[in-house]
This record gives sequence, C-alpha cells and structure tokens, in this order.
Amino acid sequence: MITLYTAPGTCALASHIALEDAGAAYTTVKIDFRSGQQRSPDYLRVNPKGRVPAMVTDRGILTETPALLAYIAQSFPAANLAPLHDPFAFARVQEFNQYLCTSLHVAHAHRMRGHRWADDEATIEGMRRAVPRTVGECWDAIENDMFAGPWVMGEDYTIADPYLFTLAQWMEGDGIDPARFPKVADHRRRMGERANVQKVLAAG
Amino acid sequence: MITLYTAPGTCALASHIALEDAGAAYTTVKIDFRSGQQRSPDYLRVNPKGRVPAMVTDRGILTETPALLAYIAQSFPAANLAPLHDPFAFARVQEFNQYLCTSLHVAHAHRMRGHRWADDEATIEGMRRAVPRTVGECWDAIENDMFAGPWVMGEDYTIADPYLFTLAQWMEGDGIDPARFPKVADHRRRMGERANVQKVLAAG
Repeated sequence: MITLYTAPGTCALASHIALEDAGAAYTTVKIDFRSGQQRSPDYLRVNPKGRVPAMVTDRGILTETPALLAYIAQSFPAANLAPLHDPFAFARVQEFNQYLCTSLHVAHAHRMRGHRWADDEATIEGMRRAVPRTVGECWDAIENDMFAGPWVMGEDYTIADPYLFTLAQWMEGDGIDPARFPKVADHRRRMGERANVQKVLAAG
Repeated sequence: MITLYTAPGTCALASHIALEDAGAAYTTVKIDFRSGQQRSPDYLRVNPKGRVPAMVTDRGILTETPALLAYIAQSFPAANLAPLHDPFAFARVQEFNQYLCTSLHVAHAHRMRGHRWADDEATIEGMRRAVPRTVGECWDAIENDMFAGPWVMGEDYTIADPYLFTLAQWMEGDGIDPARFPKVADHRRRMGERANVQKVLAAG
C-alpha cells in the first residue's frame, strides 16, 4: 500500500493522477499549507524538505515528482505509463519531466515562493514581476519545441501527461493567457475529460 | 557513438564522468560560453534551450542532466551505475539527482544567471546576495540528511556520485566553506583521486 502526501494546487497532483492511471492501491493524506502543516515536526519526519509530494512505500519514503513518476511507471509496468525497455525513449520522457520541474516549476515558484532565493521584499517583488515573462518563455518552448501530440510524447500516453496537465493549472495565476498555447490548451481539456483525472480532482 | 556537448565549469562534467565510468564510446565538443556560442544558431539547432550538456546519440539528441545520467546507466548496464532492476532503489538515486538539479543547481544559478528570473539589476543583485544562504541550506540537507556514505547512495558507486562531485566544484565560488561539510568534502577528495575523473578534468 502506498500513501501519497498531497496538498491542493501543488504538483503532487501529477503523482496522484499517475497512481490512479497505474491502478495502484494507495491512500492520500492532505497537508494543510495554509496553517503551515508542511513545516510541522510530524510532517518534517516524513519529508525533511517540508514539501509535497512525499510517497510512503513499503520500502521507505520517496520525494521529487520526476522520481516519483518514474517509480510509478516502473512499479506498475502493465499500465504502460513509460517506455520502460527503451533507454532512449525513457530518457526523452524524463527530459520532458525534468524541464517541467527545473525550468517551468522553478520559474512559477518565483511568484509565491520567492523567499527561497531572496532575503528582502524588494527582491522578492522584483522576481514576482518577471514571472509572466519567464513562465511564458517556458510555455513557448513546450508549445513550439517539445509537445509532440496528441499526447506529450506522441501517440502514447505517459507519465509526462499528468505532469504537464498539473502545471498547466497554474497558467492563469501566473498571468499567462492559455489561448497563446493551443496545443497545451487542447491537451489540458482532453486530460480534464479523463475519468481518472476527474476522480482525482474531485478528491481535492 | 555518442557526442557530448560540454563547457568548462558547467554541470556537463557529471555526464562526461559518467560516460567515462560507463566505458562508452564518445567524443566531446566544447562550447565557448565566453563568446556566447551556446546562443549561436548552430548550437541552438542542437539544443534550442541554449545550454549544456546536450548529448547526440544514434537515435537523437537528449538534454537535462538527470535524464542523461539515467540514460547512461541504462544504456551501459554492465557498468553498474544504478540499481536498474529495483524501482525503489532507482527512484532513490533519481530523487537525489533531482534535488541537485532543482534545488542546489537552481540556487547556485541565482549568482550568475539571475536574468533567468528577473528583469532589473537591483533584483538580480538581491538574488546574488542570498546565494551563500540558499546554497548553504542545500549543502546542509545533503550533508545531514541525504549523503549515505561512503558513496552518495551507500556502498555502491552510482550516477549520483559524479553529479555531486560536479556541483561541489562550485562551493567556493558560491561563498561556501567546504570545511562546513566534511562528508561532502571527503567525497570530493576521493572522487578527485579516481583515474576516470582525472582523465575527464584533464580534458577540460
């Protein structure tokens, strides 16, 4: 049995959808960010980094979304969530997920988590101002260079799809008009129609 | 045959060492960052992101260090660079590499690549000021919570080791005293003694 620690509006949604896609036996525990529960002693014992997602398995605890997504794909091979037996194709999936994590998510985080990289309010505000540009550049690269279609990697649905869908939820909040990115917008609509995704979103 | 695009002082060093560890047939091409070659039309055809590393394989081009490292481990299984047949253990390696990429490397990049996340000099300077704190917090987490020893993951040398070694080269430039992190410093010394690492460093 897997336990996934989540919080609404965070990138934990990607692993949550992937667990559902995998047909995994799992439960979720919601962490309340508004009360700062991610910094509570109890949760820091689960994840000393004080973030979600964290996934408790029979072997121990795992964190970091791209690592969790690859773990889910490898642990439930019958679900065909990644090209597990083709190192090049698997690397292409990981490359995409890596870009979401290190470029897009990081750019986005400068809007509300600026304290991670600055100590004064003026700098934090300066970083916030740049978010529509920096996040928009990431979406340009995804729309124009990376998205194969109909799914992220092409014909096959993979662990890159729930991750892209998750980060696309943040567009409006980051000051990005989704209409600028028609492939991504269409992907988001089709993902939102999937029964697994609707089940996970209803769980909050 | 693999071609790795590198530049001195960048995280491309990690993939370069891993290729040597794997016994791969490869060549390297150095990109001159001082003249802005990473933004030249020729190089943007290799990697539209304008960064190193990029790796040209018979199947196509791959980028993003954690993806490259996993690809090298999976493509050369005889080199035993990762626990390939144990999804949990493999996820632990990926989790560590992910932290280096998304937390440590990103914090470090706020010193010299601030334009990625800000548009004005005052904000870029404000981010630069915070680097010794933010990078130091990452090293605290690595030293105290993540590094198993004698190698990153424990008894077995993995693709996490050349990556940690690579980012440890940046400590002094980031205003971090290596003596604060004795496990990491000892790992760096032992890595530097390996013949493969010396060969790669001599290649520049």
